[in-house]
Amino acid sequence: MNRSSLLTSVCLGLIVSVASGCAPAQERADASALSGEAPFASFDLVMRDLGGSVDARLAQGVDVPVPVDAGGGYTHEQHKQNAKTIYEAGLLYTYTGDAAYRDAVRDILLDYADLYPGLDLHPQQKEQTPGRLFWQSLNESVWLVYAIQGYAEIREDLAAEDRTHIERDLLNPMADFLSVGQPQTFDRIHNHGTWAAAAVGMTGYVLGQPERVEQALLGLDKSGDSGFLKQLDILFSPDGYYAEGPYYQRYALMPFVLFAQAIEKNEPERQIFDYRDGVILKAIRSTVEQSYAGKFFPINDAIREKGLNTVELKYGLAIAYDRTKAPDLLGAAELQNGVVPTPEGAQLLRDIEQGKSEPFAFSSTLLRDGSFGTEGGFAILRSGPAMNDAAVLMKATTQGLGHGHFDKLGFLYFDNGDEVVADYGAARFLNVEPKAGGRYLPENTSWAKQSIAHNVLVVDETSHFDGDWREGQKHAPTVIEFGSRDGMQVAFAEISTAYQDVHLQRLIAIMPGANGRDYIIDIMRGLGQGTQQAQRTFDLPVHFKGQLVETSFEMDHATDRLELFGDANGYQHLWQRSQSAPLTSTQSASWLLGDQFYTLTFASDQPVTAYFAELGANDPNHNLRREQALVLRARGTSTTYVSVYERHGRYDSDEEVTVFDGSSISDIAIMTDDEITSVTLTPADGEAVTFRLAASALTPAQLQILRQESQDTTIENPGEGSQ
Amino acid sequence: MNRSSLLTSVCLGLIVSVASGCAPAQERADASALSGEAPFASFDLVMRDLGGSVDARLAQGVDVPVPVDAGGGYTHEQHKQNAKTIYEAGLLYTYTGDAAYRDAVRDILLDYADLYPGLDLHPQQKEQTPGRLFWQSLNESVWLVYAIQGYAEIREDLAAEDRTHIERDLLNPMADFLSVGQPQTFDRIHNHGTWAAAAVGMTGYVLGQPERVEQALLGLDKSGDSGFLKQLDILFSPDGYYAEGPYYQRYALMPFVLFAQAIEKNEPERQIFDYRDGVILKAIRSTVEQSYAGKFFPINDAIREKGLNTVELKYGLAIAYDRTKAPDLLGAAELQNGVVPTPEGAQLLRDIEQGKSEPFAFSSTLLRDGSFGTEGGFAILRSGPAMNDAAVLMKATTQGLGHGHFDKLGFLYFDNGDEVVADYGAARFLNVEPKAGGRYLPENTSWAKQSIAHNVLVVDETSHFDGDWREGQKHAPTVIEFGSRDGMQVAFAEISTAYQDVHLQRLIAIMPGANGRDYIIDIMRGLGQGTQQAQRTFDLPVHFKGQLVETSFEMDHATDRLELFGDANGYQHLWQRSQSAPLTSTQSASWLLGDQFYTLTFASDQPVTAYFAELGANDPNHNLRREQALVLRARGTSTTYVSVYERHGRYDSDEEVTVFDGSSISDIAIMTDDEITSVTLTPADGEAVTFRLAASALTPAQLQILRQESQDTTIENPGEGSQ
Repeated sequence: MNRSSLLTSVCLGLIVSVASGCAPAQERADASALSGEAPFASFDLVMRDLGGSVDARLAQGVDVPVPVDAGGGYTHEQHKQNAKTIYEAGLLYTYTGDAAYRDAVRDILLDYADLYPGLDLHPQQKEQTPGRLFWQSLNESVWLVYAIQGYAEIREDLAAEDRTHIERDLLNPMADFLSVGQPQTFDRIHNHGTWAAAAVGMTGYVLGQPERVEQALLGLDKSGDSGFLKQLDILFSPDGYYAEGPYYQRYALMPFVLFAQAIEKNEPERQIFDYRDGVILKAIRSTVEQSYAGKFFPINDAIREKGLNTVELKYGLAIAYDRTKAPDLLGAAELQNGVVPTPEGAQLLRDIEQGKSEPFAFSSTLLRDGSFGTEGGFAILRSGPAMNDAAVLMKATTQGLGHGHFDKLGFLYFDNGDEVVADYGAARFLNVEPKAGGRYLPENTSWAKQSIAHNVLVVDETSHFDGDWREGQKHAPTVIEFGSRDGMQVAFAEISTAYQDVHLQRLIAIMPGANGRDYIIDIMRGLGQGTQQAQRTFDLPVHFKGQLVETSFEMDHATDRLELFGDANGYQHLWQRSQSAPLTSTQSASWLLGDQFYTLTFASDQPVTAYFAELGANDPNHNLRREQALVLRARGTSTTYVSVYERHGRYDSDEEVTVFDGSSISDIAIMTDDEITSVTLTPADGEAVTFRLAASALTPAQLQILRQESQDTTIENPGEGSQ
Repeated sequence: MNRSSLLTSVCLGLIVSVASGCAPAQERADASALSGEAPFASFDLVMRDLGGSVDARLAQGVDVPVPVDAGGGYTHEQHKQNAKTIYEAGLLYTYTGDAAYRDAVRDILLDYADLYPGLDLHPQQKEQTPGRLFWQSLNESVWLVYAIQGYAEIREDLAAEDRTHIERDLLNPMADFLSVGQPQTFDRIHNHGTWAAAAVGMTGYVLGQPERVEQALLGLDKSGDSGFLKQLDILFSPDGYYAEGPYYQRYALMPFVLFAQAIEKNEPERQIFDYRDGVILKAIRSTVEQSYAGKFFPINDAIREKGLNTVELKYGLAIAYDRTKAPDLLGAAELQNGVVPTPEGAQLLRDIEQGKSEPFAFSSTLLRDGSFGTEGGFAILRSGPAMNDAAVLMKATTQGLGHGHFDKLGFLYFDNGDEVVADYGAARFLNVEPKAGGRYLPENTSWAKQSIAHNVLVVDETSHFDGDWREGQKHAPTVIEFGSRDGMQVAFAEISTAYQDVHLQRLIAIMPGANGRDYIIDIMRGLGQGTQQAQRTFDLPVHFKGQLVETSFEMDHATDRLELFGDANGYQHLWQRSQSAPLTSTQSASWLLGDQFYTLTFASDQPVTAYFAELGANDPNHNLRREQALVLRARGTSTTYVSVYERHGRYDSDEEVTVFDGSSISDIAIMTDDEITSVTLTPADGEAVTFRLAASALTPAQLQILRQESQDTTIENPGEGSQ
């Protein structure tokens, strides 16, 4: 089962072969994937690198093993790699004209054509979506997306009997298996369905089977109730937001982009890139917007390492640029560390080299959620357009299906290239076999999804929607306001359904202060509803990064024994490290992160007990990272927390210069009068500001922001006005 | 007291002034510090940057406050900054010829000349070494080193009465204070003494006072029993190792280098750079060698952020290159992110631009310790010459005085740009006022210096020398062997005095294995001595970085309560997280660090209980980082631990490829026969290797390494030979 290992004619190393005449790119200029463009040096280097890597694999012999292993295991990884080899060798055949690449693609595919008909479902099959080559059919769809593209590069140049064997015994059976063979996945509005549709539809174009294309576009019954177009209708919001968040958006994007490109090439009359007001291009852009310092915002189930330089987004930007020629997409591509080995990748490189690039300007933006853009949204405030300017987020989106976390109105703060107030992301070691086979870990459910794992208001130590994502899926927050107000950027949202009889309201803002200092403002409210007002516990966790430097308040510390912070809903994973006495005035905590200090100044309209907690309890398999949180706790029928974050000072160890200023907020006052709550921030320098928020969820929530004359401050802080 | 704030004629921004004729570098070519070299663009940029920064300070007005604050406070930082302003404005005067810089230097110095005579000892004085401008005289010496250099640039162009005022009321009194005024520091063989000698000696040269120079070189009594030359004799080993380690070496180096340069300029006949076989240049080189991925090895009291791009080493390399023209010093300078604004800095830049640079080849080297090179040494093994190749260290040096840690034969392992098995460094937030005023924290003594905080053998939960550094200072390890043996790099050392009646022996090696995999070998032995052999506990901590992936053994985990790992000598800062049953066979633990996996395979000749511990107990001020350790524990009269580290696999989240191999060591066998212990490592691929170590400290320790034929393996592992 290793026909391709017998290859002897492959040119090893494109660098050698270019010199030896083994890679006659010029001679085949008409066949070049560069569509008439002359090859140029930097892209030639990309292709040579690719050639070196593919040649090494071919020289080793390409094993096509009988499927045995789950994700991360040998056969799983080998089949994944083989799909890439088929694809890449196909591209190299077109680029170089070297018949050895054609033969390599052919031989691997023939090996698969020998193997595939005899395969039953995978021995490690996932219950609902089993594959044959892989444990889950999703991997099989991805495999076919790569393989069919590689096959397309050589199909015309194959002997008829090889073509027949490959199509009859591999490509058609696999496309059948992924469509009619698993209607529950193929017709599902979900990224598994998108991959299946792309695989089947792209196969249809290559094999000249309009029926497959129609099914891929419109669903098995061709009614349009499912299929690729329906997926485009449902899975992305009008702003190109994908309900599961950017980590899965990046992954989901790939089949949309590749299949759309195939549609455009084969049936330009469908104007697929204009579909829904250009939603595919919007989705590509919004994926870039949902990143900080090159990594995606790690909301919902997200592997934190993933970012702009993932291969999916490389394809996305290359194709989006090909469609739009927008120069800032070149700027985004420059953040990606390499281009894809396709004509669109070549075009990116060439246009960057020709100086057509403009920086990608990251913007403050509200990405509305829901198919109609009416189900909340992801609010992104930025202090400036550069990658490392501050970003302050509120996740007022829908649940995000089974990969969603219970973090309604979740707050995140990035600054200076760092996460300052962070999201844990997913509890998972992707494909690391000893870690539950690379699957999501039990702690993903018991910790990472729970509300306490996020910077959200947690009522009575329970998670939003009682931790039931299907319930959560039924409700979305309302974004009341997003935009600029009186020189500051503001986002304001609310939701009444996360807890029974508690209305959650949150306002976040970036407010320019004196001396060039930005204040990040966070007003988080839990307002008891109903006639019988119960006493509740309101916890506000702050998952800060860095090392605590000082607090304005005293704490009792656990020095010789650590006990649990709670017993369920994620609390059982936290050790309680210290606890304050009840605090009734404005307080602060400062920490060091890299070479910068951050201070959080906070107040509440209820007495607050502050806790420091540390992650790692009930973690017998060391599955959790050792993270920390400050947790503010108040009891009452309602609670308003006001938090102001600021960066200050400098810790320069090279120059041995340290400047630590601490809080520059002298007071936070909270007053409620006739259903209107006034929050007044008084900085040490500059004018005070009052936010006036309507309390009742029964009337439309209202927001006023007043720049304070001194008498206003006087009213709310008697005795301080004369200072 | 702010004469300099009245300046109005300073050109703001050299970039502007170059265009406006305010910086006539060419017009003063003869006065240029570049000694006849034409200015060139990249160094001009360095000077413009400097000019921008100095101009901003001058425009603000240079405050010369009455000293009040300790380290990190306002007056402390302001005086530090003023010294740099004096120095830098002086350099700018010479470079640009702009009289405004001269006047600025003059005015600041006049302010100090007004202030200084009235100053008593600093109100926050450190007990043994008080200063007047600063809380400790060390800072005052540093101040004078900078200020006298700035003064030198303008002295010739001053009015006589200004010169008199500055020299009579500031420079001479300060030089007196730092020499005759504090003989206990000036004549001390210690870096405080070096700074004082440099300050006083450099002042002597500038003011034309040979008496000061003589005192600086030979001590107050000019006997040569103290002073700069004696410091050169004592403080550096013949290999240029500084007893306190690289963090303080970098700092100590600065006055040596600057004063040496002054000596060379004023009295070249002293041939100071040839003194002691060129020990100053060796010290500069050895500082570079003692770094990994740009940061210094964090042994002893060390701020971990410090590395090659500290200003002290920038001066060091610039001056060393000026003396030697060694092209690899240019390569080292390229790692520094900028050059000093001096003629030597200009020369570095120019020669780098002219392509004269060669990469600095990091080498495997033994830096002998002690004035005569006979007191142990710092063994550095490297897998290759690149900055990110693996480095494996054994700290078999002397104690390192009061900044030394109790880590005899300490092991460290760096690889792939990361610390893999780490040193905590110092418990200190340099100059962060809320953190004990920026001083060393109490946890520096209670944790960071203790043996358990290091990768060393700890006997009966006590630290080496019972934690008494003065006792430690009396004893040094013996390096028995260092070099290449049979294709592997080896260091082997021992010490009998760290514990009463326990002889410590350690061997570290880098052994190339099959498939390009390097094995890092660590054999750590504690051998009971004396006639009455006591039962002892032998703990071997492994302070690994990364996230645990799996262990070959089962553990009992503390899930709902954490208790202390021990009660003193640093153990009281560790939480005990999990504990194994006694292990009697070869075991392994694997972890993920960045995109790489590491596996430690270990065995002992005693049953071993493995613990995972976490740092943070008894830490009410959050002074400690949240670190982890694997601790191996055995009980017996003697114990030998054998550890083999290997890097393997790949965790590539961009490509979503994960390869996890785990241990490739199939067995570790330890046999002792007739005072000779044989340690046999049997890799899964490749030949077995046996290390034979003589046990007795009474006879000279011996080492043999045998590449194993299969029958040897058979003897020690019956039944496995036929596999």
